[in-house]
Amino acid sequence: MPDDHVFRMMLRALSGNVPANIESFISRGLAMIQTPYLLFLGDAPDQLAAKVAQGIKDWRPENAVGQFRMAGCGADVGLADMTLEEGIAAGAKTLVIGVANRGGFISDAWKEVLVKALQMGYDIASGLHNLLRDEDALQAAARVNGQTLFDVRIPSVAYPIANGVKRTGKRCLAIGTDCSVGKMYTGLCMDAEMQKRGMKTTFRPTGQTGILITGGGVPLDAVIADFMAGAVEYLTPDNDDDHWDHIEGQGSLFHVSYSGVTMALIHGGQPDALILTHEPTRTHMRGLPDYDLPSLEALRDMALPIARVANPNCQIVGIAINSSKLDDAAAAAYIAEVEGRMGLPTTDPFRFGAGKLVDALDGL
Amino acid sequence: MPDDHVFRMMLRALSGNVPANIESFISRGLAMIQTPYLLFLGDAPDQLAAKVAQGIKDWRPENAVGQFRMAGCGADVGLADMTLEEGIAAGAKTLVIGVANRGGFISDAWKEVLVKALQMGYDIASGLHNLLRDEDALQAAARVNGQTLFDVRIPSVAYPIANGVKRTGKRCLAIGTDCSVGKMYTGLCMDAEMQKRGMKTTFRPTGQTGILITGGGVPLDAVIADFMAGAVEYLTPDNDDDHWDHIEGQGSLFHVSYSGVTMALIHGGQPDALILTHEPTRTHMRGLPDYDLPSLEALRDMALPIARVANPNCQIVGIAINSSKLDDAAAAAYIAEVEGRMGLPTTDPFRFGAGKLVDALDGL
Repeated sequence: MPDDHVFRMMLRALSGNVPANIESFISRGLAMIQTPYLLFLGDAPDQLAAKVAQGIKDWRPENAVGQFRMAGCGADVGLADMTLEEGIAAGAKTLVIGVANRGGFISDAWKEVLVKALQMGYDIASGLHNLLRDEDALQAAARVNGQTLFDVRIPSVAYPIANGVKRTGKRCLAIGTDCSVGKMYTGLCMDAEMQKRGMKTTFRPTGQTGILITGGGVPLDAVIADFMAGAVEYLTPDNDDDHWDHIEGQGSLFHVSYSGVTMALIHGGQPDALILTHEPTRTHMRGLPDYDLPSLEALRDMALPIARVANPNCQIVGIAINSSKLDDAAAAAYIAEVEGRMGLPTTDPFRFGAGKLVDALDGL
Repeated sequence: MPDDHVFRMMLRALSGNVPANIESFISRGLAMIQTPYLLFLGDAPDQLAAKVAQGIKDWRPENAVGQFRMAGCGADVGLADMTLEEGIAAGAKTLVIGVANRGGFISDAWKEVLVKALQMGYDIASGLHNLLRDEDALQAAARVNGQTLFDVRIPSVAYPIANGVKRTGKRCLAIGTDCSVGKMYTGLCMDAEMQKRGMKTTFRPTGQTGILITGGGVPLDAVIADFMAGAVEYLTPDNDDDHWDHIEGQGSLFHVSYSGVTMALIHGGQPDALILTHEPTRTHMRGLPDYDLPSLEALRDMALPIARVANPNCQIVGIAINSSKLDDAAAAAYIAEVEGRMGLPTTDPFRFGAGKLVDALDGL
C-alpha cells in the first residue's frame, strides 16, 4: 500500500512532472532521490561534519553539480561553490543536506535557505535525526510548491515479509568483526572496481549515507523487525546472471546491539560471496566496553553456516582490512600476516584498491 | 520520551485514578494491562478462533473472572458466562479480545459492546491486526471515559539500544528448528513447574498472545530493528540471583524471514540456558516450501556460539519436543530416540510435564 510520500510522488507523475527515474521508482518501489544534487554544507564547523557530502563527492561525483556554503562554513568538499540559482542553472534537482546539524536541530538560518530552495523547485533530501517533515515551514513550502522532502532515515515503503525464494544474479556482502569497520567502503570500492572493468554491478545501500550517495536504498536499521529480511530481498531483486549486487553491510554478528540487523541482511541478501572486514586497532566492540572483538576465524566460522541457510553455495572469498590507523609499512605487514594465516585474498580496498577482492569473485 | 499512550497513563495517575500496578508500570515502562479480565469471545465461529482466551484460561486462570459471549458464539473456554455488569461486579478491570475477528474487521455488533464496556469503566486490550485505536468510536469513548485501549501488537515504549551489560538473575530461552514449534508453551510450562516448586520465576512474553496472557511484555516482531535487542534487555531486567526469567522465543535462526528477531532475542536476552524445540512431523520450514528443517544438531551447533557472545556461560540444557501430532507410543519412542542421540534431557513439556527441563537448570 503506498504511503503518503509514495502517493505524492505518484500524483506528481500523473500531473506530468515526471522525474527521469519515475519508472524504476514505481516498478521497484524504492524512493529514488532525483539527481544531480546541490550539496548543502550550511555552516558546518569543520570537514568532519560534512562526511555525507564528502561521500557523495568521493563515490558519485557525477551526482553533484556543486556545493552550497553559508557564512562561517568550515568545510569544503572541493566542488564549485554555487548559489541556489546557479545550482538550478547547472541542472540540480535536489538539495542534499550533506552535513550534520549543530546542536541537533534545524536552525532558522538553515530553514530560510531550505524554504527558498523548495520555492525554486528543489526537492530536499536529508539523513538528519530530526526530520524535515517535522518542520512546519518546510512541510508547507514543499506542499505549496509540489516538491518532495526525503527523510532517508525513515522507510518510505511497506516492505514485504521475506519469502526466501532464490533470486537470479549474484550478491556480495561485507560482514564485520565489529560495527563501523569499513563495510560500506568495501562495497563501494568493489562496485567502483567492477564499473572500471565494465562489469555489471550495483551498490545497494542499507544506511543513510549510502542512500544519499546513490539516491536510493533501504534504511534497514529503521525497518520493523518482521520486515527486515523482506526489505533486503526487495532491495536486491532478480538480475542478470552475471550482475553483482554489492549490499551495504550493517552491524556485526558479534555486536549484541545490532546483530539481528546483520542476521536479516545475510538471510534476506542470500549472498553468494562474503567479505570479512576488520579494523585491527579496535580494543573492544564499538560502544560495548565489556566485549572483546572476535577473531577473523571466529567470524568466518559463525557466518558461513548462517549464510548457507539462505544460499548453500555461499563462499567467504576475501578479507578487507581497514588500515586507516596504520602507516604504510604496518598496513602492508598486517595484511600479509592475515592473508597467510587465513588463506584468503586480503587487502585494504580503500587504500590499495579492490582488484584482489573482485578477482576473488571470479567463477562464483 | 513517553509516547501518547504512556502520557495518557501518567495523566490518569496524576488525576488520582491510579491503577494498582502503576508503580511497576512507571518504573519498568512496560504497558501493564490491569487484571483481572473479562474475556470477550464475541461471535467466535469455533473454539480455534478463541485461542487467545483459551491461553489465558489455561495459563493464568486467576487473570479471568469469566467469559462474555454474543449470539451465535461457537466457542466456550469453560469459564462462567457473564454480562458486562456481572464482570464489573466480579472485579474485572479489562475486557480482553480473546478471539480472532471474522473478516479482519471490527464489526458494528462488536463495537456496540466495546463502547458500552468503555463507558462502564473497562479498559480494552486486543492483539488484533486492525487496531482499536483506529476505530473512532472506541477512541472517543475511551477518551471521554478516561479508559485505555491496549493494542498489544504495537510497542507502547521507546525502547533503548541494547548495552550488553551483564544482568543479575538467570534467563532461559527456547529456540526452535522452525517457527511455531512450541517455544511459548515450553516457557509457560517451565514457569508453571517452577511456580509449583516455589521457585522464583517470571514468564516474559515477546508476542501478542503471551502479552495478553500475563498482562505485559514486548511485541518484539513490531519493534524497530535497531531497538530489538534493547527491548529484550528492557523486558528482562536485573533480578535475584536465584530468579529465572523464561523469555518467550520467536522465529528461528534457520527461518530466513524472521531469523533477525531470533538473533536479537538471544543477544538481548543473554540466556544462561537454551532449550532446543522441535516438531517432528514438519516437512519444510513454515511458509518456506524450499527450505528443509535443520537437525537438532545443526541448531545446537549454530546457536551456542551465538549465545556465548552475550553470555560465555550459556549452556544448552534440554530439548522440548512438540509431539501433538504423534500418538502416545510414537511420542515416547521419538523422545527416547532424541534423548539418546543428543545426550540431553528431552520431553514434551506440555504433554508429559516440564519437570525434566526444570531439573536441568539445576546448578546453573
